[in-house]
Amino acid sequence: MAVEQLKLQLFNLHQNKLFEFLVISIIVFSALITGAKTYDIDSTMANVVAWLDMFITVFFLVEILIRLVAEPRFFDFFKKGWNIFDFLIVTASLLPIEGNDSVLLARLLRIFRVLRLISVIPELRILISSLIKALPRMGYIVLLMFIIFYIYAAIGSFMFENINPVLWGNISIAMLTLFRVATFEDWTDVMYETMTEFPLSWIFYLSFIFLTAFVFLNMMIGVILDVMQREHDEHYRETGEGEAGEVHWIKEHSALMEQRLERIESLLLTTIKKDVRDEEKEKS
Amino acid sequence: MAVEQLKLQLFNLHQNKLFEFLVISIIVFSALITGAKTYDIDSTMANVVAWLDMFITVFFLVEILIRLVAEPRFFDFFKKGWNIFDFLIVTASLLPIEGNDSVLLARLLRIFRVLRLISVIPELRILISSLIKALPRMGYIVLLMFIIFYIYAAIGSFMFENINPVLWGNISIAMLTLFRVATFEDWTDVMYETMTEFPLSWIFYLSFIFLTAFVFLNMMIGVILDVMQREHDEHYRETGEGEAGEVHWIKEHSALMEQRLERIESLLLTTIKKDVRDEEKEKS
Amino acid sequence: MAVEQLKLQLFNLHQNKLFEFLVISIIVFSALITGAKTYDIDSTMANVVAWLDMFITVFFLVEILIRLVAEPRFFDFFKKGWNIFDFLIVTASLLPIEGNDSVLLARLLRIFRVLRLISVIPELRILISSLIKALPRMGYIVLLMFIIFYIYAAIGSFMFENINPVLWGNISIAMLTLFRVATFEDWTDVMYETMTEFPLSWIFYLSFIFLTAFVFLNMMIGVILDVMQREHDEHYRETGEGEAGEVHWIKEHSALMEQRLERIESLLLTTIKKDVRDEEKEKS
Amino acid sequence: MAVEQLKLQLFNLHQNKLFEFLVISIIVFSALITGAKTYDIDSTMANVVAWLDMFITVFFLVEILIRLVAEPRFFDFFKKGWNIFDFLIVTASLLPIEGNDSVLLARLLRIFRVLRLISVIPELRILISSLIKALPRMGYIVLLMFIIFYIYAAIGSFMFENINPVLWGNISIAMLTLFRVATFEDWTDVMYETMTEFPLSWIFYLSFIFLTAFVFLNMMIGVILDVMQREHDEHYRETGEGEAGEVHWIKEHSALMEQRLERIESLLLTTIKKDVRDEEKEKS
Repeated sequence: MAVEQLKLQLFNLHQNKLFEFLVISIIVFSALITGAKTYDIDSTMANVVAWLDMFITVFFLVEILIRLVAEPRFFDFFKKGWNIFDFLIVTASLLPIEGNDSVLLARLLRIFRVLRLISVIPELRILISSLIKALPRMGYIVLLMFIIFYIYAAIGSFMFENINPVLWGNISIAMLTLFRVATFEDWTDVMYETMTEFPLSWIFYLSFIFLTAFVFLNMMIGVILDVMQREHDEHYRETGEGEAGEVHWIKEHSALMEQRLERIESLLLTTIKKDVRDEEKEKS
Repeated sequence: MAVEQLKLQLFNLHQNKLFEFLVISIIVFSALITGAKTYDIDSTMANVVAWLDMFITVFFLVEILIRLVAEPRFFDFFKKGWNIFDFLIVTASLLPIEGNDSVLLARLLRIFRVLRLISVIPELRILISSLIKALPRMGYIVLLMFIIFYIYAAIGSFMFENINPVLWGNISIAMLTLFRVATFEDWTDVMYETMTEFPLSWIFYLSFIFLTAFVFLNMMIGVILDVMQREHDEHYRETGEGEAGEVHWIKEHSALMEQRLERIESLLLTTIKKDVRDEEKEKS
Repeated sequence: MAVEQLKLQLFNLHQNKLFEFLVISIIVFSALITGAKTYDIDSTMANVVAWLDMFITVFFLVEILIRLVAEPRFFDFFKKGWNIFDFLIVTASLLPIEGNDSVLLARLLRIFRVLRLISVIPELRILISSLIKALPRMGYIVLLMFIIFYIYAAIGSFMFENINPVLWGNISIAMLTLFRVATFEDWTDVMYETMTEFPLSWIFYLSFIFLTAFVFLNMMIGVILDVMQREHDEHYRETGEGEAGEVHWIKEHSALMEQRLERIESLLLTTIKKDVRDEEKEKS
Repeated sequence: MAVEQLKLQLFNLHQNKLFEFLVISIIVFSALITGAKTYDIDSTMANVVAWLDMFITVFFLVEILIRLVAEPRFFDFFKKGWNIFDFLIVTASLLPIEGNDSVLLARLLRIFRVLRLISVIPELRILISSLIKALPRMGYIVLLMFIIFYIYAAIGSFMFENINPVLWGNISIAMLTLFRVATFEDWTDVMYETMTEFPLSWIFYLSFIFLTAFVFLNMMIGVILDVMQREHDEHYRETGEGEAGEVHWIKEHSALMEQRLERIESLLLTTIKKDVRDEEKEKS
């Protein structure tokens, strides 16, 4: 029970907005100080931040250990993706990185300490989950874009190779040049160069820009509709509340009311028939 | 029946996610290797990819032939646009292209092999269908943009022709310059140049940017609303499910319930009237 | 009646998609030929287009005159904004512009001939109407943007005036420079220049970019929501169809059903009470 | 009562669209004239605008004082954030700023006079309120962006430091460079430079651009959905009107109707049972 109580207390502290803000500040400051070694930062302040940073790591280590102990079975903890993520990030942050033997690894470990932010803030996990959900749909858009880029790059490298081989040398290079055109980055320089030899090559660039912008626009709409539909359905399934839930409730209860009305009508009809029969009997 | 069974098996293989991923990888790799002849690619690997690529083409040829045979009438197959597309792409991919007699045609055939991706992935067909559906609406936006560009280009070429004939020589050239301004590509260079002679010409550029951005924004909203409305209506018509379907169900059943209630009320009224009449008869 | 019939025939021709496409093509071609005098265009073709263009103008003049005659009262025609617009554009297109006495006016008249496209295509009128409806909301956004630009420009001109007076000379110039930064047009050149003296001035630029992008984003959402709400309400009011209309129908009929049920219940209660009273009378 | 009447009259004047337009024009003109001292503005006109500007300030001071007096308790006025904002802006606008002793403060006071626009236009307050409401959600997006930027900046500064220390000197500088890449501002120059040593570094840039664009896209969708949900709920709670309100009404009344039907059915059943019992009694 003591473990459960401790877990609850840590959870409450974790949920505390002020504590969250403090932790975020320390991780961000720590990350910036790690990165900006060349700046003249007061070494006392840097030390304080480093100590606070270490304190946070230990705090989250303790929290994870308690969550691990509180689990009925040991390996159940590692069945959730986010638990594994938390565990790896926190343990990696604890490794001693002052040694000179593996500078690259030490640097990488320091960099990935910033990922503790995702362990700290539940809202970031929701954001990342929704990003991962949108991945499959995005994958198909990327393939469609690839086809458009490939065909334009093939035509471009075929026609403009002799004008500027640096930009149109082969299809791969031409695709990179077209990506540059799609981001509007000095694309007129690329166009004016080819227009000296092919005065109508503006059609090539404008059609490409229209096509990619058009596909991008539709992608955005598609993703928005997709996400909206999914959120709507999920909300409906989970809560049964909201407009959709109420409509469903009304539908089901309308069906019940109809059955009840049928019963009432048949009751009335039978009593009336019986009355009529009774009367006829009486008369006869 | 053997044809039907074979068709089903091929269809199942086609639906298999791992198989789809493999096919996509091979087509993309093959396209990149075709394009990047100048890279130092291991010729063994290039050969393997070429063989796998050929295998895919043959696989899809077989699949199309079976779909063709499975059709009750021969020409029914060619009534669907996508079937013709698949047939053309796959047969074109099979043409021998090693000969030197028609280099341009050979190159074009190689490039369009990448379109087999659309034959492979059903989701891409859905994307392209929705793009084609959005075309008419987009056409009117393009016309509106043309009017805005034309009027600004006419004013621009009239006023700034003497300052820089390369950018403002005639209306066509001025429209290209304005498209550049609309994409924010070095537009300040264009503006600062004309501001030396006309200090207030920034009004020309800013009003143009506001107008095109404004029209573009409204276009986006319009298209989003259009697509949402269409999806909503389609969903409603097809399934009869969802909120809209349920509301329609409730409406129809409310009408039925009302009729039933009317019948019940009139039944009650007639029995009561009869009772009253009976009683009056009894009394009299 | 002959006028009504002629009006109907012209209206049918006007609605014809092929005719519309032809008219659009001729107006666009005509506009491009007017603008691109310097190109080597075959004079025969240019003449043909000019004749077709004149034919269109006459056609629309005839259509407008018939619409004018068909109106019960003469001035009713000029009560609709679009009628005045059509009339002005078509009559202005008919003015002889070959004379050399007023070159500027002649040029302007030629340019505004392209506005006949709006007279031809009803969809463009719908687009422009929706643009005009969105204007008031946009006006407030522009004011909010003005406040942000003004404060940043004041701070910028105060701090960076000595570094580059061309960019930060006074508040007006600084506002133009900030508009350039907001469009991402060589904004890093502006920033790097001021960072030599004020190393922290990147905060100025980044906060400005975040703020304007943030306001723009919210503007977009606001406008989308506004337009959606308006479309929804309008659809509801006009047709009474769709989900909202059906829900309203259900609500009204539910109220009627409730009243009927109340009547039924009271009927039953009174008959039962009467029965009970009758029985008690009988017993007594 | 006189105070209440005066308050009402001032409120009516405040609501008047023409008056609003006049006040906006004067504040904007006054702000531009303050900023553009170097322009050759007719001093008479500048004086007129200055006098009108002072008149507006006095008008709003009077309005605020009346609102203050009309309040039942003195300090209730200062409980609303917007009242404090109005009070501070108007009193600050009244401070004499012609003295030379504190030029910086005088300049700042002049600049912030433009904020009176927010006091004048209620729609701007609504816009700002909705911006403030969207802040928390935006905060989490900024943190997610920070993580992406930090990791890419760390990798970038580690790999490209020797190529160009001005762009990749330390993580902070690298983050600024990456922000430049994210705004597409001369990003190809940055890329081409590193591609001379690392030919595959385009993967670094393209993956970064995809990731930030992807996160931004999802952010936009999330914010739109969030705002829509909130508006929908608020509308529902406040008015009880609209589709959602009507559906709720129908649900509640359906429940009432069901109860009534239950009562009717049980009434019928009891009367029938009684009739049957009576008959049996009669028979026996």
